[in-house]
Amino acid sequence: MVFVYYDHSEPEWEEGIFRTRRLTWTKEAPMPRPRTPLLSTERIADAAMELVGEGEPFGVNAIARRLGVTPSSLYNHVAGRDEIIELMRGRLGERYIPASLSGTWDEVVETMLRTERRMYADHPFLIPLIVGKTITDPTVIASYDRLATALVDAGFPEDEVLEVVAIMDAFSIGFGLDLASPDDVWRPETPTDTLGRLVEIGPRGAVRSDHAFESGLELLLDALRLRLARYEND
Amino acid sequence: MVFVYYDHSEPEWEEGIFRTRRLTWTKEAPMPRPRTPLLSTERIADAAMELVGEGEPFGVNAIARRLGVTPSSLYNHVAGRDEIIELMRGRLGERYIPASLSGTWDEVVETMLRTERRMYADHPFLIPLIVGKTITDPTVIASYDRLATALVDAGFPEDEVLEVVAIMDAFSIGFGLDLASPDDVWRPETPTDTLGRLVEIGPRGAVRSDHAFESGLELLLDALRLRLARYEND
Repeated sequence: MVFVYYDHSEPEWEEGIFRTRRLTWTKEAPMPRPRTPLLSTERIADAAMELVGEGEPFGVNAIARRLGVTPSSLYNHVAGRDEIIELMRGRLGERYIPASLSGTWDEVVETMLRTERRMYADHPFLIPLIVGKTITDPTVIASYDRLATALVDAGFPEDEVLEVVAIMDAFSIGFGLDLASPDDVWRPETPTDTLGRLVEIGPRGAVRSDHAFESGLELLLDALRLRLARYEND
Repeated sequence: MVFVYYDHSEPEWEEGIFRTRRLTWTKEAPMPRPRTPLLSTERIADAAMELVGEGEPFGVNAIARRLGVTPSSLYNHVAGRDEIIELMRGRLGERYIPASLSGTWDEVVETMLRTERRMYADHPFLIPLIVGKTITDPTVIASYDRLATALVDAGFPEDEVLEVVAIMDAFSIGFGLDLASPDDVWRPETPTDTLGRLVEIGPRGAVRSDHAFESGLELLLDALRLRLARYEND
């Protein structure tokens, strides 16, 4: 026996037509069991991350279609777009950021840079979304707090610690995207003075990106150590 | 008089339904004049950039709908998605990158970093797309060539120049996204050891991002100068 359920919530204006949604399920028992796990913020975040990764809009309506539920049932779990972005940030944080960070300040910095580079490389299309919203997720806030504390404890002046954090974020986001770039970054199709020759002699793919990252990491850590030494001598 | 024209090209599978396109125009003269300028790669790139900025898919069909033309007419100008990405990269290059770069190597580096930071900040959602594709656009290739030549001429070893370029790209992309981030980057809603206090005492908005960028720029240029001095002493 098949029940057809019409969703009478507000029809959605999309791509030039009005659309109404229709959901069906098969009655197999007096109380129909849901075919999929119950909705949760985790499932919503994961569906949103899939859509973003595919270059699709990730609004409440699109997520509801992907999960086969009504938008109104989604609104029982999330208030809207901003909350979904924050849920995605939280999922990334849970999966990638180590629960504890120990060691010297520069070990903490290095661990965070390596972790975030990998996280961003795996989710390049998420970057503009999560960078475009104020961070409130408790897991991610806690990781920034641990980093800020390590830098303050190391002796960086309090009014410069968040500058160092922003430099680290820029670096890890940029190198995450670099790692997500294609094997050949440049393919000159017209003669060049230098670039074509350097591309020929240089490594390709992940090897190229890894070399550049390690070189940049050494440069950044050296520069931060030098800056810290200057503060200690002042 | 209104002519209705049915597009008999392949219907597009989209969001769960097949869709056929219908275009109309009003006949005002024996030879109907187009209401909009003729199609060009520039108009196609600009329409694609609008779609990307709005978080929408930017495939040939979506661009055609936005421009009010048939997908098949678009295919007279572009071969597909990859070419559209390259056109967008070229449009950014034309608009932002200075036609000539002069001065010492570190002045060239600084100019490129400032220029690209602004370019990426203005177009955050384009970043994963253009970073995810091999660069072939002649304008952009030429700017990388000028930068690589300046670094080789300055004395950076040839096998390290593209590493320095990758570090610069990571830096400018990361700080472009930082500048595109909201006025409040962090809003801790649970107690923190350090972060909450630093957010309170620190600047907000573009001032915060500018300070961090200038601090990072100084750090990076100092580190590159130091590295170059070491090569010269070897």
